[in-house]
Amino acid sequence: MAIVREKGAMRQWSRSQRQCGQRIALVPTMGFLHQGHLSLVAEARLRADKVVVSIYVNPGQFAPGEDLDVYPRDFDSDVEKLKPLGVDIIFNPHDLYVRESPEKNRESGHETWIRVENLERPLCGGSRPLFFRGVATVVSKLLNIVEPDVVVFGKKDYQQWRVLARMVRDLDFGVEVIGCPLVREADGLAMSSRNVRLTATERKNALAIFHSLKRAEELVRSGETDSSVLIEQAVTAISNAGGKVDYASIVDQETLKSVDKITKPSVFAITAWFGSVRLLDNVELSNN
Amino acid sequence: MAIVREKGAMRQWSRSQRQCGQRIALVPTMGFLHQGHLSLVAEARLRADKVVVSIYVNPGQFAPGEDLDVYPRDFDSDVEKLKPLGVDIIFNPHDLYVRESPEKNRESGHETWIRVENLERPLCGGSRPLFFRGVATVVSKLLNIVEPDVVVFGKKDYQQWRVLARMVRDLDFGVEVIGCPLVREADGLAMSSRNVRLTATERKNALAIFHSLKRAEELVRSGETDSSVLIEQAVTAISNAGGKVDYASIVDQETLKSVDKITKPSVFAITAWFGSVRLLDNVELSNN
Repeated sequence: MAIVREKGAMRQWSRSQRQCGQRIALVPTMGFLHQGHLSLVAEARLRADKVVVSIYVNPGQFAPGEDLDVYPRDFDSDVEKLKPLGVDIIFNPHDLYVRESPEKNRESGHETWIRVENLERPLCGGSRPLFFRGVATVVSKLLNIVEPDVVVFGKKDYQQWRVLARMVRDLDFGVEVIGCPLVREADGLAMSSRNVRLTATERKNALAIFHSLKRAEELVRSGETDSSVLIEQAVTAISNAGGKVDYASIVDQETLKSVDKITKPSVFAITAWFGSVRLLDNVELSNN
Repeated sequence: MAIVREKGAMRQWSRSQRQCGQRIALVPTMGFLHQGHLSLVAEARLRADKVVVSIYVNPGQFAPGEDLDVYPRDFDSDVEKLKPLGVDIIFNPHDLYVRESPEKNRESGHETWIRVENLERPLCGGSRPLFFRGVATVVSKLLNIVEPDVVVFGKKDYQQWRVLARMVRDLDFGVEVIGCPLVREADGLAMSSRNVRLTATERKNALAIFHSLKRAEELVRSGETDSSVLIEQAVTAISNAGGKVDYASIVDQETLKSVDKITKPSVFAITAWFGSVRLLDNVELSNN
């Protein structure tokens, strides 16, 4: 397993591998890896000859005042976690965005951004209007540098997965997009690098998100199709547990538009604050 | 020389060529080829083993009310012009944008757009605010499908060339960008597919653009450095010839920001209407 820090070296490696007919998978991450990430790596391992994991905390997707500065990082530990998984390259670029040298004027900085104009708007787009602009742009850069045959994302970040799949389709990137199931802790909390920033009490209270999604699944199984009923019980449960709901929405799985009745494949997506930590979770719902 | 009309077949051809170590050049065009285009093809021929010329009138860069419907087309003649030039593939896609089938809702349409946020604003960005969004997006699609090693643009469309070079740099496309000199008719008119839409009188009057740019070059050579002097003579000459100036601007070659004095490499870019045709022209200026 090699660590590559430069764009040029990364592309050169990929091209030499493809020249030999090797199929390459990319797993883009922001590091501080947990079992959820590792499940993506395992999926990548099954789908390609060579696996590249990128570790890069992307400033372009954090707004001023968001948690870029306190986003957890532990590169050495990430390396140890990836070693047993048959990863070929950890791509940890230091030169991903053009740096502004003091001699050059500001205009030499990065100014190209990708917008997925419909899918970026609902759900997380409400409170983080430039978040998916940053995500789409950095992923397009990674795809252009690594030139993978397949790229693997987690459905934990459900909207992100849909936005990126749409970008790949619309811009004709020559890569297959895979979405992998969300992975949970033993008690049900959705795995997230941000979970370490929860206090013990917040950690326990945050389970309300998972429990309310489970409850929604049960209600649908028992015949409930009214989205507002499912949403109301979730918002109540999370608020009672001390959480602050950012959104709790039931949307079409493909268009991410709100659905009033669960009559087609839908996803119930919830984002809520516990203390200073914003947590995401979701379940796919279907009335079949 | 083969004609390829499908994205998948195009990418497959490119990948098999690169697998054999062949270097591929792409020349993106909207067809109705003239000597200016053919000079780009000749440059591409020098820089790669295989040459792909794309012919596609891109709806995404025309606003409602612009000249998409009357944009000149003559595919058979284009093919004849390219035959003697050693072109390997004419890529004339019929499936470049996702089609909306009647069964699917509108959300399945194309929604991903690339913005080069600073360079897209001046010059043509004033009267065509979404033009470079359309150009950048379609070129990114072509780059992702053809996967060329080098892409060749004309400096006739000076801002377009700068916007696309910046996009390639910012998004880390693995392709070299070449800008080729503008080509003129014998009398000096900048070659353009749109020239055929000029009446004989408009065609003659339109030479005022070229003459005023020549005059600006002469003034700079004789020591004039004041942009406003150069611009004023041009606007006057073009207006006197019956043209309607959209803009006449002297800008920094790299940032495209207005310069008051010609103290660094600059470009004098003019766009003017003669009749129903909008014509572009430019010269690079330097006080050395």
